[in-house]
Amino acid sequence: MAESLYLGIDLGGTKIAAGVVSVGGEVRGFARAATPAREGVEVVVRAMAGVAREAARGAGVSVKRLAGGGVGAPGPIDSVAGLVVSSPNLPGWRDVALGRLLGRSLGLKLSLENDANLAGLAEYRFGAGRGCSPLYYLTVSTGIGGALLLDGKLVVGARGAAGEVGHLVLVPDGPLCGCGNRGCLEALASGTAVARRAREAVRRSVVSMLTERFAARPSRITAAVVADFARQGDPEAQRILAEAMEHLGRGVAGVVNLLNPERIVIGGGLSSLGPLLFDPVRRAVARYANDLASESVSVVEAELGSRSGLLGAAALAMP
Amino acid sequence: MAESLYLGIDLGGTKIAAGVVSVGGEVRGFARAATPAREGVEVVVRAMAGVAREAARGAGVSVKRLAGGGVGAPGPIDSVAGLVVSSPNLPGWRDVALGRLLGRSLGLKLSLENDANLAGLAEYRFGAGRGCSPLYYLTVSTGIGGALLLDGKLVVGARGAAGEVGHLVLVPDGPLCGCGNRGCLEALASGTAVARRAREAVRRSVVSMLTERFAARPSRITAAVVADFARQGDPEAQRILAEAMEHLGRGVAGVVNLLNPERIVIGGGLSSLGPLLFDPVRRAVARYANDLASESVSVVEAELGSRSGLLGAAALAMP
Repeated sequence: MAESLYLGIDLGGTKIAAGVVSVGGEVRGFARAATPAREGVEVVVRAMAGVAREAARGAGVSVKRLAGGGVGAPGPIDSVAGLVVSSPNLPGWRDVALGRLLGRSLGLKLSLENDANLAGLAEYRFGAGRGCSPLYYLTVSTGIGGALLLDGKLVVGARGAAGEVGHLVLVPDGPLCGCGNRGCLEALASGTAVARRAREAVRRSVVSMLTERFAARPSRITAAVVADFARQGDPEAQRILAEAMEHLGRGVAGVVNLLNPERIVIGGGLSSLGPLLFDPVRRAVARYANDLASESVSVVEAELGSRSGLLGAAALAMP
Repeated sequence: MAESLYLGIDLGGTKIAAGVVSVGGEVRGFARAATPAREGVEVVVRAMAGVAREAARGAGVSVKRLAGGGVGAPGPIDSVAGLVVSSPNLPGWRDVALGRLLGRSLGLKLSLENDANLAGLAEYRFGAGRGCSPLYYLTVSTGIGGALLLDGKLVVGARGAAGEVGHLVLVPDGPLCGCGNRGCLEALASGTAVARRAREAVRRSVVSMLTERFAARPSRITAAVVADFARQGDPEAQRILAEAMEHLGRGVAGVVNLLNPERIVIGGGLSSLGPLLFDPVRRAVARYANDLASESVSVVEAELGSRSGLLGAAALAMP
């Protein structure tokens, strides 16, 4: 009997990635392409189908022989109804039944989930959260998203929107967030927030290595730049990053109190900051979460990197 | 065949209550007594056994004929290990296997859970959260506690500590909390916090009806007093309460984002404030939670009052 293989497709605002994945998490075929984001739903679905078929060819199978599959997409997703409700990076998308549309085109039943939930599922199944329950997965990148798993099952909530901690308001009247409110965790501790604080400091001419280097082009500052300067000893970069990570830690401690997770896995671009992120977050958990909950949790870095989305999408269909 | 009946025992800092409960939530026998809190574990367990036997006599059955039972207690409880870890109201209690001790004395297997979790379970099974999933139960009283249920099962987490939102830090450097941190939800929005803010205003001689009436004895101010004065139109009482309930709403909105619950049930003393609590909390959920999650949740008052603890304790043992 042939091994069961699963299709995972990850739709991002800039690229589409697809993989054919074994039950053990091995990627047997992989393909990707740019997302034709401005060309509307139909063109994007056609491009996704093309990428999926290419991944299948890479694995030496036809899509129709696959045992099942899943699709991940960003933005608010009603995974109960199977709809991409809207998406900041996909103009004009409104209540798109992406799994069904793509599934029909490929002749394969596909479930739909948001990308952070899929990354969390992948980390549970193949990565840093293997076998942990409750597991909370947090992604810290341009935005902040999350996923909650109990006994390896995604907790999606009443409309598929569960898992999110990015818009927890942690500072009343804090910095403006993309959502329209102020002081959300995402506005305090995402990569975007860290870069913005550093640009503001440079524009205010705060004395620092950052200002010396970027006075003429503050818009080039990214969170990675701030981290580099912090490592080199720039006090202003250190201050900005420490403040952001203290906020992140308070948010994580809130999750620890509410869920008493066995493990918190942190992924996304900023998880590569290493101790600059994990030390303050672990300190905040020890300080702000109750003793029982903080003693029983480990906070670790994600293992699967940028393929976690498609791995999780494939895992959606696995038994 | 005789109807199955269950024992529920609720240990509080000041009183012990026990009930014999049917699967439908009817209390067939009830008893209570003061908690001999200062006399140590053994005396308290003996008193609890006495109250349980009295409740059984009231129902016309012997304890040994009951189908099962549960015990609720305040404070941090490791419900996975079955231990009262400690309790602010029960001096000297440390890792007490309360369910096993009392069960041995009564000849009945008893599970142990914290009181907020049991009130949440009772509201799911018999009250305002019937059949809802995810269900989040919040109790707002002298402290703030909570419980999370998925498909009617308590989510207790890795060590039985899940469900708590009272020590979510919502205002950095906010008012000091009993836990030692600052700006916890409990320090901002509990009955204790509301009364403390009002006393501070009176001591600062803020012009208000509250100050007129309580200048000579600010210590008599309770949250219920503040609510009365707010209803009578005192602007200072209204301001204090509105600010506290805005914080409560931000906390609840955080839970809504994280869990996408179908329903939030609010119990505890302050839930009787009615619109003074529910209006600002619902407004905050609409404002701070994401659209999918805020559209799919209803925020309602608990139905079971002070018997929810023993009802939930009995329900712990029900199939």
